[in-house]
Amino acid sequence: MQNTFLVIIEILGTLAFAISGIRLASAKRFDWFGAYVVGLITAVGGGTLRDLLLGLTPFWMLNWSYLAVTGVALLLVIASGRYLIRMQNTFFIFDTIGLALFVVVGLEKTLAEGFPFWVAIIMGTVTGAAGGVMRDILINVEPLIFRRDIYAIACVVGGLVYWGGSLAGWQVNALQLLTAATVILIRVLAVKYHWGLPVLRGEEADGDDN
Amino acid sequence: MQNTFLVIIEILGTLAFAISGIRLASAKRFDWFGAYVVGLITAVGGGTLRDLLLGLTPFWMLNWSYLAVTGVALLLVIASGRYLIRMQNTFFIFDTIGLALFVVVGLEKTLAEGFPFWVAIIMGTVTGAAGGVMRDILINVEPLIFRRDIYAIACVVGGLVYWGGSLAGWQVNALQLLTAATVILIRVLAVKYHWGLPVLRGEEADGDDN
Amino acid sequence: MQNTFLVIIEILGTLAFAISGIRLASAKRFDWFGAYVVGLITAVGGGTLRDLLLGLTPFWMLNWSYLAVTGVALLLVIASGRYLIRMQNTFFIFDTIGLALFVVVGLEKTLAEGFPFWVAIIMGTVTGAAGGVMRDILINVEPLIFRRDIYAIACVVGGLVYWGGSLAGWQVNALQLLTAATVILIRVLAVKYHWGLPVLRGEEADGDDN
Repeated sequence: MQNTFLVIIEILGTLAFAISGIRLASAKRFDWFGAYVVGLITAVGGGTLRDLLLGLTPFWMLNWSYLAVTGVALLLVIASGRYLIRMQNTFFIFDTIGLALFVVVGLEKTLAEGFPFWVAIIMGTVTGAAGGVMRDILINVEPLIFRRDIYAIACVVGGLVYWGGSLAGWQVNALQLLTAATVILIRVLAVKYHWGLPVLRGEEADGDDN
Repeated sequence: MQNTFLVIIEILGTLAFAISGIRLASAKRFDWFGAYVVGLITAVGGGTLRDLLLGLTPFWMLNWSYLAVTGVALLLVIASGRYLIRMQNTFFIFDTIGLALFVVVGLEKTLAEGFPFWVAIIMGTVTGAAGGVMRDILINVEPLIFRRDIYAIACVVGGLVYWGGSLAGWQVNALQLLTAATVILIRVLAVKYHWGLPVLRGEEADGDDN
Repeated sequence: MQNTFLVIIEILGTLAFAISGIRLASAKRFDWFGAYVVGLITAVGGGTLRDLLLGLTPFWMLNWSYLAVTGVALLLVIASGRYLIRMQNTFFIFDTIGLALFVVVGLEKTLAEGFPFWVAIIMGTVTGAAGGVMRDILINVEPLIFRRDIYAIACVVGGLVYWGGSLAGWQVNALQLLTAATVILIRVLAVKYHWGLPVLRGEEADGDDN
């Protein structure tokens, strides 16, 4: 029962991430194949980097469903066109739930490999946020995540909650729920109240560091 | 006999890929070292990503010939200068044969590791096409492959032919030949008749997805 | 005693690399988190790529000090602001010493895995120079290293010195010192006398290779 629920959440999260990649690719007038690849990398890129760093086979190579879900995302974008833009809020919800789940998966997979908590927190954040960075590199824009409202920080705080709860001896289910809820809550509040980190004040680009 | 033939094809394919990277680097006024690195990554980047995803040591770390061939490519570009540009068609042939061979290598290496066919098709495509994406990221342009005529799709179709022929019980040699011929044929026809996938229609970049 | 010295050098080198990344991020008006990530990737990105290519767990996942040093770098940049710009020369020294040490670490780690010297020289260069390339990709500029004065070449020559000294039967300590001194010397002379490699003469970007 609970597993079915998690699978549905994971599919919706993957779908939301893939659609975000495909929509940005469409703004750059990529063709269908390019849009599919950008969508796929947005959805699975973070988890792939995590698995490579952990020395594991990337998760999507063991289960074709991520490729299929990205295909569905492409069909949805092609079929619905501009209509999708107006569903902004719906996507925000999926995207945020997906982010929360990706963080939990990243935390647990890393701890299962025997790494300490501080590595797990990084890997939770990588799972949630690195796909978006890869997407931005592929479409040749500066990664949004480095200049925008709280996003990766929500992943880090979620990881800290997992750590704290684990030290306090909570059960796995409670840990998962509270971590996910933390990520979602911070993300929702950050967007609602335009929370952001301070910007690092700009020296001119003087071009002589290396 | 046949092995010698394959080696010659692989060298010519590597040479063609390296030259394509070096020529694009020269248009950006990179120095010799930068051009060499871009040429090398164009030639071996796809196979390197494939090997990392499969958990193998990257192929070029086991044999210095890929570095040497890239060095020859750099010398050729330096020595011949603008003359090379007029050899466009010759390079197209090498590049296409190289692409076909890279796809076959990617398919077989992945299957040898025990992965299913759908993973092998992705890895064949990664072997053939990811080096060009890395090249475009390094010279800071949007990856050509996402907006151009059929290129990666030729790799995917080649992989499907390999799969179908394998299910039909064909011999390895026939599989290899027909896969390579499929990639070459699709690529040649795509360029000749300007085949392309539909472009995903452009929403404005609204910048508020993540 | 000597180990303490090496640790101090490594910390200073990591600090200098991280500061170079954070300063370039600040010129692009990244927020604190973005600046931290760019600084971290500048400092550990080269070694991470090396470890992935060698099939090892990335070094910074085994020791949290690299994350902490990057945090110190961020605090230094935030606290000192424009004052840091005038310390250009101090950073150049740290950066160059860090580069030299990173090259030595890359050489020795690769040889310890049983790879031949030509692979070790590449890995020494990757350790020293790839982090800066990743930094430039993240902030979406063309990698400086491909168009600037001698930088990666200093790593390559250092590696050749290590190889030559090793063939000549020198002791490890002498090898390390002479390799590092070579990298530092070439780098200092290159900046002082504006040494650079020839630029590859520019065909127009004709956009029809792949």
